[in-house]
Amino acid sequence: MSDPRPLGVFDSGLGGLTVVSALMAALPHERIIYLGDTARVPYGTRSPETVIRYARGCARVLMARGVKALIVACNTVSAVALDLLRAELDLPIVGVVEPGARAALRAAEAVPSPDGAPPAKIGVLGTLGTIASGAYPRAVARLSTRLEVVQQAAPLLVPLVEEGWIEGVVPELAVERYVAPLIESGARVIVLGCTHYPVLKGTVAQVAARLSGLEVPIVDSALATAEAVETLLREERVLRAPLRDASDGSRLELLVTDLPASFAVTARRFLGGEAAPEVAQIDL
Amino acid sequence: MSDPRPLGVFDSGLGGLTVVSALMAALPHERIIYLGDTARVPYGTRSPETVIRYARGCARVLMARGVKALIVACNTVSAVALDLLRAELDLPIVGVVEPGARAALRAAEAVPSPDGAPPAKIGVLGTLGTIASGAYPRAVARLSTRLEVVQQAAPLLVPLVEEGWIEGVVPELAVERYVAPLIESGARVIVLGCTHYPVLKGTVAQVAARLSGLEVPIVDSALATAEAVETLLREERVLRAPLRDASDGSRLELLVTDLPASFAVTARRFLGGEAAPEVAQIDL
Repeated sequence: MSDPRPLGVFDSGLGGLTVVSALMAALPHERIIYLGDTARVPYGTRSPETVIRYARGCARVLMARGVKALIVACNTVSAVALDLLRAELDLPIVGVVEPGARAALRAAEAVPSPDGAPPAKIGVLGTLGTIASGAYPRAVARLSTRLEVVQQAAPLLVPLVEEGWIEGVVPELAVERYVAPLIESGARVIVLGCTHYPVLKGTVAQVAARLSGLEVPIVDSALATAEAVETLLREERVLRAPLRDASDGSRLELLVTDLPASFAVTARRFLGGEAAPEVAQIDL
Repeated sequence: MSDPRPLGVFDSGLGGLTVVSALMAALPHERIIYLGDTARVPYGTRSPETVIRYARGCARVLMARGVKALIVACNTVSAVALDLLRAELDLPIVGVVEPGARAALRAAEAVPSPDGAPPAKIGVLGTLGTIASGAYPRAVARLSTRLEVVQQAAPLLVPLVEEGWIEGVVPELAVERYVAPLIESGARVIVLGCTHYPVLKGTVAQVAARLSGLEVPIVDSALATAEAVETLLREERVLRAPLRDASDGSRLELLVTDLPASFAVTARRFLGGEAAPEVAQIDL
């Protein structure tokens, strides 16, 4: 009982590689094909119709390569196109918003609150597009009617991460600018609602702790998504068994629609310790 | 001899309003229709074919409203589509790159350099798209074979300006990050190669002076473009004469393709002291 087919992961750009990194850690035997639609990034500013059209194109490319499940590592696509992709396509599909909302809920329920006090609020950091879509409050509301969600768009964090400017006073002050209103509104759990943000997770945790005087759990939707994928593969009985032969070949194939000069550097940043994989440019 | 037809100005977003602000100051009797293609911003990441298609659409809308000249207040369109628009359309067209390059050249030639020393280099700050296009070095090379151009992409400056974060340590350090390599490469004149940047002009000047120990002229391509438009209208004899009636009506009409919530605030930021005008949403 081993399903050797790869997992298909796509995102508008390279941020989804944080999800790939979490998947590789959680599922060390799976092969992954990642598609970054770098020629049409960002999706966050496009109309829902356009996002749906782009998402269908990405899904088609990955399905033509025989993937056993689709992971939508893009908050915008997860917010506007996931139900439709699930209705149209005959394979399991996981987005980043639902797992992130579920993990935030668990974290908020674990925060101790005095008797009779309202439960901890969930704070969401995201791009303008994700925040405007209301996807996280909607996903939390589907799971619980008790928990309140406060949101904050954080437009500087993506360019900071893409520049690799992730340490020092500037990223700290930028994170503080966005985290402060969440803490002031009573957020005691913070969701990283964009696949770029896990690179700044330590800074977010530190700033939130300093501002609130409490330890604030930071929910990384990349990690939550990897857990959801693992559960799904188990349930569907499509895990890939470990190979006896140690020479497992390359576990990660990377497709992009545009080839920025700084690609290798950026990919390494998102993949954490992983070596940058071979990359191929394709046309959608 | 008065031509009452308005000027047509377009940009991918709202940054081009810095050009409008300069035009209103230089040409106080002209009426202006501004089109910001806010639904499809940014153009900087799109293929030249797409940018050309979008630019044709913007030009068509403005020409249908009877403008007497087109001002392309977008570095990306100026870089990739200007020659084509000029060949296709039967009205005067001014872009932002040529006037910016011309003003930079004048400024560089005015910088004193010791006998026998090479002339001051021109430093260009721009978006990734504008820098990658090489439009400024090309435009300078057409005007002079002596002057050297060094470039620096500055991806954090647009989000900083759009957030209104234009004072304090974060914009200063961000500007320093981009200005320092230009100064180290010998730039003694800096061109603001993006219509968002004039909002940060004071910070750029101050940082460049501190790093170089010299006064570094900052070329604002919005101002240079307004001068070029004034010259063109004079040459073509299509200036609008001052009206005797003081009630001149509204001088600025604003069209956008998408209506962000923060529109009025952002527009005021780019227009300087000007009151935010009435705005209409259109479909392209």
